[in-house]
Amino acid sequence: MTMPIPNRPVILTGDRPTGPLHLGHYVGSLKNRVSLQTSHRQFLLVADCQALTDNAHDPDKVRHNVLEVVLDYLAVGIDPALTTICLQSSLPALAELTQLYLNLVTVARLERNPTVKAEIALRGFGRDIPAGFLCYPVAQAADITAFKAEVVPVGEDQVPMIEQTVEIVRRINRQVGRQVLPEPRALIPTVGRLPGIDGKAKMSKSQGNAIGLSASSEDIRAAVHAMYTDPGHLRVADPGQVEGNAVFTYLDAFGDRQEVAALKARYRQGGLGDMVVKRRLEEILQELIAPFRERRRHLADDPVFVLNILRRGTETAREVTDAVLDDVRRSFGVFTFV
Amino acid sequence: MTMPIPNRPVILTGDRPTGPLHLGHYVGSLKNRVSLQTSHRQFLLVADCQALTDNAHDPDKVRHNVLEVVLDYLAVGIDPALTTICLQSSLPALAELTQLYLNLVTVARLERNPTVKAEIALRGFGRDIPAGFLCYPVAQAADITAFKAEVVPVGEDQVPMIEQTVEIVRRINRQVGRQVLPEPRALIPTVGRLPGIDGKAKMSKSQGNAIGLSASSEDIRAAVHAMYTDPGHLRVADPGQVEGNAVFTYLDAFGDRQEVAALKARYRQGGLGDMVVKRRLEEILQELIAPFRERRRHLADDPVFVLNILRRGTETAREVTDAVLDDVRRSFGVFTFV
Repeated sequence: MTMPIPNRPVILTGDRPTGPLHLGHYVGSLKNRVSLQTSHRQFLLVADCQALTDNAHDPDKVRHNVLEVVLDYLAVGIDPALTTICLQSSLPALAELTQLYLNLVTVARLERNPTVKAEIALRGFGRDIPAGFLCYPVAQAADITAFKAEVVPVGEDQVPMIEQTVEIVRRINRQVGRQVLPEPRALIPTVGRLPGIDGKAKMSKSQGNAIGLSASSEDIRAAVHAMYTDPGHLRVADPGQVEGNAVFTYLDAFGDRQEVAALKARYRQGGLGDMVVKRRLEEILQELIAPFRERRRHLADDPVFVLNILRRGTETAREVTDAVLDDVRRSFGVFTFV
Repeated sequence: MTMPIPNRPVILTGDRPTGPLHLGHYVGSLKNRVSLQTSHRQFLLVADCQALTDNAHDPDKVRHNVLEVVLDYLAVGIDPALTTICLQSSLPALAELTQLYLNLVTVARLERNPTVKAEIALRGFGRDIPAGFLCYPVAQAADITAFKAEVVPVGEDQVPMIEQTVEIVRRINRQVGRQVLPEPRALIPTVGRLPGIDGKAKMSKSQGNAIGLSASSEDIRAAVHAMYTDPGHLRVADPGQVEGNAVFTYLDAFGDRQEVAALKARYRQGGLGDMVVKRRLEEILQELIAPFRERRRHLADDPVFVLNILRRGTETAREVTDAVLDDVRRSFGVFTFV
């Protein structure tokens, strides 16, 4: 059972269960969540409904990844006594709020949403966008408000989603004449996005450039060995470039700041070989990932235990979201049985 | 408690609670429903969520009309022991199915829907269509399938909505590999639409050309007196035209077929005055509406009784729709807790 901590700001975040999480997720969000869970009332939403907006042809993939994502959360140190882990599709209030909010947003406004525009282009939907995909900013507004979330950690590119939520919140509060819902604010991570091991902008399992959170010792070794460095750095004695050099970007993300500064200086000067730097990065990653992998293996042996964490979290979340739905509906003036 | 009648086809119909029902509704649907309730397993949905798709600025109007519509149903002879009267916004399965189905329909497909196109034009939405309005064919598919309705009485202009539902049903059944949902068919009324008392195509409260189901004796008299006839029929002795003559259209709808045929013949020939025909129509309408009005007045004195009919019907409907949602979700492959 999650312990409610009074007077801590509510934070909502989560992931689409479309594959196991990787080091990019760890740097971009999971690590933060582990520290935020003590200072905030944190809800983690396994967003299977949202995953279906562009995976309706393959619901099996989404279903199979639900417990995988929960395993990843627990493996990196999310504590179910501090964080409520819950399943989107088992929270009917989210669909009900979505349906209500869809009446408050025009189609033109959704089509103007920069995040939706970018993602439509990325997925090559053209005119054949699933309606659910066009509407997902509204569904996200439902998610955020259903928990009365005040803080939502998102990447820079997702800020328009929070703006859409704020618009809906203002519309409702204005029409009702009191502050039924808080206006959420975006929490943008200060660390940059972790590139793939090939140096490409985004680590992604489908690109084959990711290191999984439960990567084996051999996988880590192979990944670091294959990692993109400075293509102009041919001999150890040559000066090397650290900018755009994936090994150093990873060292920045995972290493000790002073040690990394010293390594960078030597590399730039010449005389520090790629193999030496890679060996150091490998050590650091092995040390980071080993406990994740062990915990994950241990937990994966007891799926009922993991399922029960998700079930109990979802029950807690259901109470919270049902209460908010009831409040919004009554205030807005939807018929309610007494 | 509604008694389930085994092996009767399921029929779903309903009304948007945006105002009291009138004689046009009676002719077009209510009268049929009274007879269908013995041959079918009938659900009547008070569609308050759908009413909000274009009334989100005025939810009070929608809420206030919920019990009015139930009163109208009971007044005309809908029997809660045979028909389940239920409230859309209290059936979360409908929003959950809507959210799932939105992923199976493209925005382009919704924009091509002729009914939606016509209604967008009618309401003058232009580009500022509320997203909920564009999506309402999908919400209707959710309504229809949540009851596994096989028969849906609709006007000719609403047939594209049933086609949209059939497409969604086929997509789901095909993807799942078995018939989870039945394909609904439209039941199109054989009687034409009742014109307004001014002879205009559609009776509508907002046009001021309607006769309410609880119209007073005086209202009925005044409405029939003001009714549009043949503007060329100036003297009793003149031959009159019955086509486009509202009084005769009403007689067709409410009178005895043989008697009306005789009246038409005399009117066409000349020598039958408008006042005589109107007096006969008034008698017929007074006789029809008086018991509605009495029953309605009686029921309106006991709102708790009426509320409880809606509450019990909604409970029954909730069991039905929750079970269908569960079936669809499991078959489709959404994660479900065991």
